[in-house]
Amino acid sequence: MLDAIFQVIDENREVYIRELQALCRQPSIGVSGEGMTQTADMVEQIVGKTEARTEQIVTDAYPVVLGELAGVDSRWINLYNHYDVQPPDPVEAWTSDPFGAEIRDGVLYARGAADDKGELLARVFAVDAWRQVHGRPPVGVRFVFEGNEESGGESTVAFARRHAGRLSADGCIWEYGDKDAEGRPQIYLGLKGICVVQLHARGPARDTHSMWGPVVPNPIWRLVWALASIKDENERIVFPGFYDRVREPTQAELDCLERLPFDVSAEQNRHGIDGFLCASTNIDVLRRLNFEPALTVHGISGGGTGTQATVSIPSSATAKMDFRLVPDQRVADVAAQLRAHLDERGFSDVEVESFAGSDPARTPRDDPLVGAAVRAARRVYGIEPAVHPTSAGSGPMYVLCQGLGIPSVSFGIAHAGSNFHGPDENIRLDDFILGIKHVAATLYEYAPLA
Amino acid sequence: MLDAIFQVIDENREVYIRELQALCRQPSIGVSGEGMTQTADMVEQIVGKTEARTEQIVTDAYPVVLGELAGVDSRWINLYNHYDVQPPDPVEAWTSDPFGAEIRDGVLYARGAADDKGELLARVFAVDAWRQVHGRPPVGVRFVFEGNEESGGESTVAFARRHAGRLSADGCIWEYGDKDAEGRPQIYLGLKGICVVQLHARGPARDTHSMWGPVVPNPIWRLVWALASIKDENERIVFPGFYDRVREPTQAELDCLERLPFDVSAEQNRHGIDGFLCASTNIDVLRRLNFEPALTVHGISGGGTGTQATVSIPSSATAKMDFRLVPDQRVADVAAQLRAHLDERGFSDVEVESFAGSDPARTPRDDPLVGAAVRAARRVYGIEPAVHPTSAGSGPMYVLCQGLGIPSVSFGIAHAGSNFHGPDENIRLDDFILGIKHVAATLYEYAPLA
Repeated sequence: MLDAIFQVIDENREVYIRELQALCRQPSIGVSGEGMTQTADMVEQIVGKTEARTEQIVTDAYPVVLGELAGVDSRWINLYNHYDVQPPDPVEAWTSDPFGAEIRDGVLYARGAADDKGELLARVFAVDAWRQVHGRPPVGVRFVFEGNEESGGESTVAFARRHAGRLSADGCIWEYGDKDAEGRPQIYLGLKGICVVQLHARGPARDTHSMWGPVVPNPIWRLVWALASIKDENERIVFPGFYDRVREPTQAELDCLERLPFDVSAEQNRHGIDGFLCASTNIDVLRRLNFEPALTVHGISGGGTGTQATVSIPSSATAKMDFRLVPDQRVADVAAQLRAHLDERGFSDVEVESFAGSDPARTPRDDPLVGAAVRAARRVYGIEPAVHPTSAGSGPMYVLCQGLGIPSVSFGIAHAGSNFHGPDENIRLDDFILGIKHVAATLYEYAPLA
Repeated sequence: MLDAIFQVIDENREVYIRELQALCRQPSIGVSGEGMTQTADMVEQIVGKTEARTEQIVTDAYPVVLGELAGVDSRWINLYNHYDVQPPDPVEAWTSDPFGAEIRDGVLYARGAADDKGELLARVFAVDAWRQVHGRPPVGVRFVFEGNEESGGESTVAFARRHAGRLSADGCIWEYGDKDAEGRPQIYLGLKGICVVQLHARGPARDTHSMWGPVVPNPIWRLVWALASIKDENERIVFPGFYDRVREPTQAELDCLERLPFDVSAEQNRHGIDGFLCASTNIDVLRRLNFEPALTVHGISGGGTGTQATVSIPSSATAKMDFRLVPDQRVADVAAQLRAHLDERGFSDVEVESFAGSDPARTPRDDPLVGAAVRAARRVYGIEPAVHPTSAGSGPMYVLCQGLGIPSVSFGIAHAGSNFHGPDENIRLDDFILGIKHVAATLYEYAPLA
């Protein structure tokens, strides 16, 4: 059965690549809105070719394209992807037009090729191949293709809450995955949570000559002290309750880490650093990366630096940062703990601005869908995939999956040089075809036909 | 005698104003070099009209215009001013051309009108009036007009050290002074020292996705912790030795503060703040401002803030700050203490970049030159001047005066709305003429003719 499906996929290679080029040539930039409506329509039409029943569900931002196709088995698998892409800036850094979808040496270059249009079509074409060979997929599949992944995600949370009933499923194949530098496929069983906040401190009404420093409150100092009160020099977040809900990794999850290829010294070189924080061995670095929450400042600003800067007390200072969370921490708890901590420590003058966040999500290694994805990877790629108990990244997985009782697994078509969010974003066409097969095979392994 | 001199000053009002306009129309922007050579020549020519022997002394930057004219008395008074000005940016914020020296309603608007060309000419014309009436001034006067005040000051330090012998004098009239909002002339007996440094922290070689936060060193955190280790939340600079050389104010200096007009609540409103730091009464605020050292961060930068900022660990972070010092602290000591502290506290990775600084300087209230300036102010303005034991600002006073054993006093022609370094910098023409008289009268009070 699966051989026949693989054969159909191979036979349709050129058709699938032409459809991929067409979708990549259609801009769909969430932050500006460019091409979003047209892309939603285009995606709905492509999904419709699988004979799925399609509709566009209105959200607070761009619509979710939903498609449902019943399978042999009564279980359902959601296929979550997004049709919006990052802006292509800086365009001049690209070798070819970001929306040209040019193919050079078997590699397709386009904004969104990897993140996430190639992945989205890999799901659609896997189901299409099943339909061609078998009339329908082995389990029910529900395409959940949203348009707000790159531009916030608040609307996705609202969508998931409003349509929880419609999303009910036995598993979900998440939006992305890649091969590492050695070509080994990577499978991710979760995402960290993220809670993004900005701290604002205020000083004098206008920038004030620094000779007033002995008596005029300085917002940079307020911000520095507030930040230092949150995380100490040992990287420990000191406010009460922060670590209370951190779940210890299971033995199965630790075993996954032991098997991951990771070379501390090579990774240090890649980052251009002398050492990792609080960890020196492979396993310790991976444990921190996978199972420890963190607080990372992305940016800090206030007043001016450099030779030409005025010698002033600035009127405001800002720091942007994220908490990366692990199960069973919750964004809402952390935001409340942060505010309470600042008030308690005398920083009630420091304002906290919260951005859309997402709760952490992880699926157990022994879930049937995980096993299916791993066996399918062995079958398609001929090698053992690397199974990560979680990605260190974040996304709306909890609200769309674990929060609804749905286990999830993430894998896909990118490679170590795909350059997500950067210039010359690309995928290798062979990976695209293999990725279609991996999705098709996962459905088979999950619900083998009698 | 003094009446005759005042009469000459009044008779020459239009001549003096035309010369002021001519000098203000000649740009002399130290940071860009625009017009500096021409201005030095022009200043030397103006000084020459007093029959002073003039020369231009080469420095590491722009020349110092020196002029010497022997007096009746064998003592010498240095007259320190500068002919360079701040850039006029933003030019569009000016009502008229920054180098147009337009007069509207008795006010002359020009970059440098207050800081410091009007002051410079007030010294020259006071001596000129003495020469016209009496053939020579009551004491020897030495014009020390430099061109590097606004653009660093390293060359001024080198100049003072190299030509210490040439600068020998019994007193110095420093470069500036103003009237407060109530019209009372202000006299300053010192300047705080300043030690400007930038701290640089380094992170990964390139901006790195924030998901690496648990293990990749973050330069913003390093900078925040380093800063918090230097000054605590009670505004106390915690490194060893910092306060060791802080000189207690004398009773005469404290008496000066008691007599200064200062209204805590009005000043808080002006700054748009709810309260001053560590002080709530007039005298406590003034004590901190005058007699306490401080550490003020002007600017901090690293990564990005705001909605569009990338979620990254930045590769570097920088903070610029100044220590304001009081006698007998020394810039060199503080810089060394800072480096030692950072090393001791585990921040040897944080780089310290030092900028040109200046040591603190203060002249005792009972110095004869101070008495002369105060009596002259009463005579010229008809009211009691406000005598500040020090300005809260900084400048190269120590290296040119106290460091050479020369007492100094600073007063001048600006007013509360002169807008130093800002758009529409201005002086009132009546203040200019009164300022010339104040200099002339100070020389008389210092060395009354027999």
